[in-house]
Amino acid sequence: MAPIHATHDQLAQVRYDADGLVPAIVQDASTGEVLMMAWMTADTLRLTLAEGRTVFWSRSRREVWRKGETSGEVQLVRSAHYDCDGDTLLFVVDQQGGGACHTGNRTCFHRAFGPAGDPAAGDA
Amino acid sequence: MAPIHATHDQLAQVRYDADGLVPAIVQDASTGEVLMMAWMTADTLRLTLAEGRTVFWSRSRREVWRKGETSGEVQLVRSAHYDCDGDTLLFVVDQQGGGACHTGNRTCFHRAFGPAGDPAAGDA
Repeated sequence: MAPIHATHDQLAQVRYDADGLVPAIVQDASTGEVLMMAWMTADTLRLTLAEGRTVFWSRSRREVWRKGETSGEVQLVRSAHYDCDGDTLLFVVDQQGGGACHTGNRTCFHRAFGPAGDPAAGDA
Repeated sequence: MAPIHATHDQLAQVRYDADGLVPAIVQDASTGEVLMMAWMTADTLRLTLAEGRTVFWSRSRREVWRKGETSGEVQLVRSAHYDCDGDTLLFVVDQQGGGACHTGNRTCFHRAFGPAGDPAAGDA
């Protein structure tokens, strides 16, 4: 797990919401699939960059959530991006284990709107 | 622009936050790039599915925002997905015009954390 050495100026570009959170999109480096979206605090963003693996803030449990710590489905960060107005993050990762989703699916976005919206057809 | 006929059950899976909003990730169908993230209300989600193009809610302007209406950078929706807990959406689109970002970049995530984080190197 290789750390990413963000500059102070880069980190200062990130804007957090009233709860101190920023949405973080996770994309599979090998397939390009969007795997999931979760939330980070300034602290878990720093942990993610330092540890080279995604670390989120669990809004429901109100605690630091190291993705894959119990499941083994760790996400090794290849690159980390922030958007034009600094209020959304994107992590391109090597997904370890079976997938990103707690349902056992590779991506959390396995369901699609529309008549073809069954799980099999819904994979992005 | 082809409409997507979502079922009542599918639409009922979507969970909105306290402000009535749900984050919507937009991905380029041809390149796989994550282009942007914006917000939808239940109304703009219905408009998006009905019109087959992305329609967001502008939090700053507090109004319906038909992406590309003035710039021509319309996003034609190929498929629309909702995640495992229904609180994030994903739209796979054909991006029209030069790109998704108001800065002129193809993706809003053109900046990366780290020493290689210049705009050119930062493209996902």
